[in-house]
Amino acid sequence: MRPLILALCLLGTGLPQTVLAAEPPPGVPAATNIPGAAYPRLLPDNRVVFRVKAPEAQRVQFRIYQTFDAVKDAEGFWTVTTEPQVPGFHYYWLVIDGVAVNDPGSETFYGTGKQTSGLEIPEPGDAGAYYQSHEVPHGEVRERWYHSKVTQGPRRFFLYTPPGYDQAGATRYPVLYLQHGGGEDERAWPIQGRVAQIMDNLIADGQAKPMLIVMERGYAVKPGEAEVPFGPGANANLTPAEMQARTIARFGTFEQVLLQDVIPLVDANYRTIADREHRAIAGFSMGGGQAFMIGLRQPGLFASIGGLSGTGGTIADPATYYGGVFADAAKFNASTKLLFLGHGGAEPERMMTGFHGFHARLTELGIKHAYYVSEGTGHVWLTERRNLREFTTRLFR
Amino acid sequence: MRPLILALCLLGTGLPQTVLAAEPPPGVPAATNIPGAAYPRLLPDNRVVFRVKAPEAQRVQFRIYQTFDAVKDAEGFWTVTTEPQVPGFHYYWLVIDGVAVNDPGSETFYGTGKQTSGLEIPEPGDAGAYYQSHEVPHGEVRERWYHSKVTQGPRRFFLYTPPGYDQAGATRYPVLYLQHGGGEDERAWPIQGRVAQIMDNLIADGQAKPMLIVMERGYAVKPGEAEVPFGPGANANLTPAEMQARTIARFGTFEQVLLQDVIPLVDANYRTIADREHRAIAGFSMGGGQAFMIGLRQPGLFASIGGLSGTGGTIADPATYYGGVFADAAKFNASTKLLFLGHGGAEPERMMTGFHGFHARLTELGIKHAYYVSEGTGHVWLTERRNLREFTTRLFR
Repeated sequence: MRPLILALCLLGTGLPQTVLAAEPPPGVPAATNIPGAAYPRLLPDNRVVFRVKAPEAQRVQFRIYQTFDAVKDAEGFWTVTTEPQVPGFHYYWLVIDGVAVNDPGSETFYGTGKQTSGLEIPEPGDAGAYYQSHEVPHGEVRERWYHSKVTQGPRRFFLYTPPGYDQAGATRYPVLYLQHGGGEDERAWPIQGRVAQIMDNLIADGQAKPMLIVMERGYAVKPGEAEVPFGPGANANLTPAEMQARTIARFGTFEQVLLQDVIPLVDANYRTIADREHRAIAGFSMGGGQAFMIGLRQPGLFASIGGLSGTGGTIADPATYYGGVFADAAKFNASTKLLFLGHGGAEPERMMTGFHGFHARLTELGIKHAYYVSEGTGHVWLTERRNLREFTTRLFR
Repeated sequence: MRPLILALCLLGTGLPQTVLAAEPPPGVPAATNIPGAAYPRLLPDNRVVFRVKAPEAQRVQFRIYQTFDAVKDAEGFWTVTTEPQVPGFHYYWLVIDGVAVNDPGSETFYGTGKQTSGLEIPEPGDAGAYYQSHEVPHGEVRERWYHSKVTQGPRRFFLYTPPGYDQAGATRYPVLYLQHGGGEDERAWPIQGRVAQIMDNLIADGQAKPMLIVMERGYAVKPGEAEVPFGPGANANLTPAEMQARTIARFGTFEQVLLQDVIPLVDANYRTIADREHRAIAGFSMGGGQAFMIGLRQPGLFASIGGLSGTGGTIADPATYYGGVFADAAKFNASTKLLFLGHGGAEPERMMTGFHGFHARLTELGIKHAYYVSEGTGHVWLTERRNLREFTTRLFR
């Protein structure tokens, strides 16, 4: 029953207003709300009720992919009920008189280049159980600061260690280097991506091998170095070769951080199996581009690569693409343990074209790869949680 | 030179407006800004320039202890320069047409019961060097989820492990249980409190013993249990005995979580020295109240207690105060390794009265304690960073 109809029915009963106000609102607070916040609320059909108190505001909107205009009541509360939303984790925000800000009722998540409100819409049944916290042995996510020789300043990464790592004596583990998307940072995989929950559950079920997962910050500049422009139009009218050169220019310093700072630090301080067969690199979106760039340029370091809604770009001439790595498919297939490409079935058209093109070109060239499509999901963290599950269950086998 | 005067001077030179606009604004972006955000900016005298673009807004204010009204320019930017701010970390927010929201230019920090903007004002010279990240051996902050037998659901704590913990073989460490303040959560000490930076530096300098620090969430309710009301007026007109009973009611479930879930988990999974001499409890504000309540009620578990801008409340009759723990000062002093009370010299009057009263009463009763005052600072995280330094340099000696 819609709130308006309910309100009218109760009004018809002549109940005093205080009773009306005491009726619990329909739906449940989102899991991503701060403690005690009644809104946003999720209705059983995945419509979302947003609300904020703003008596002096002229216009209040909530934006979750599309903009929903809220309506003000006599007490100054602005409320709107959206269309049904796709399950998973979504960034959203509140717009007060034209200014995009966070919803005070929500936790914040670093994405879209800033701290942003987020909304978790549960999946039906137990489809999302693999990223919830269960009564299974738990690993840890460790925050590690270090001094970077490359950027000459403090940096940090997060490191997932599997359950029992501390008690496992001399046991050594393979390592996955896992990168976030553009506009996000090293906190995205542990928080939005729920890496610890997913890996704890997969490991408990015997579906994934125990592994370390290093989540670095995918941005790096040396002192005095300018960032390579990125954004709408930055790559327009570039040839595939120019695109690849720009990718290398954009991420070259990050690659150095990974190779000169992070990998040596991880191999020296944690019980890794420090060879290429037990080292993988993967990433979401921009991080997928980094994974292909670094993984394909450093075959001596990485035997497995994962593009999670991210590709290695356009493969025009295999002879020049990343040093000709795909020119001899048999040789590449023999030395590569896993090449994975996964994406949502409902990502934006430009991205779908990229995924389909990369997948088709790999197939055409005879490059063996695992391919996964998350049906019905977009360029969002639900796709990436699934991608992580599909990738890690195939990894280090 | 104030911006207005600078602008007028440049106007006088007849330089074209594009040059005027290209002049870098005075000051520097705050360290707490998100990457790329030019505002808030800090001026050399610790005045803060806040700015937000809000062409449609009717009124824009920034609130950092007091409210500053911003002024709109022709392009829709609202700007205000505050009075000089006290060094340290401060929560603040933006008010758009009466609605308190986060400044999009700032990182967010869980405090004041929600995700809030924060502003780091550097201390003069190297006074704040102890909480910066330096080229010293680094420990880790580990995020650990577990299933609570008490609350029957998932909970988490953060755990600081000192540099070299993984490589230290059979070495065992003392443990400090360290609680956040009201309206904050288990993220506050690692982030706002800079626990890892402070401890890494103190340990590198030999000023603090290597120790584990467990940072739990100071809220807990069992299934179906109601939270004990807290807030303005909740404690009004209560006798000291009623206050103490209410404290025990409020934090009793949290105490059970700590005793039945956390301490056994920590002692079983980490290389602790699992005796009372090597176990301490401390906390900021509300967390200080929890530390005294739990520490004084569980002398078999804790030999050291720290009140960091938090006290054990009013000691009216020592015979009934927490089971008469202060009734025999000689006995208490002999069995207690460290009782610490630290606070800012400029905290709100009501709090200062509490600190001074508790300190005076301990002295009067002959209860040995270390006492520290952070000159000129309020009920803020700079006081708590100093309190942590002063407490941990005395701890486990």
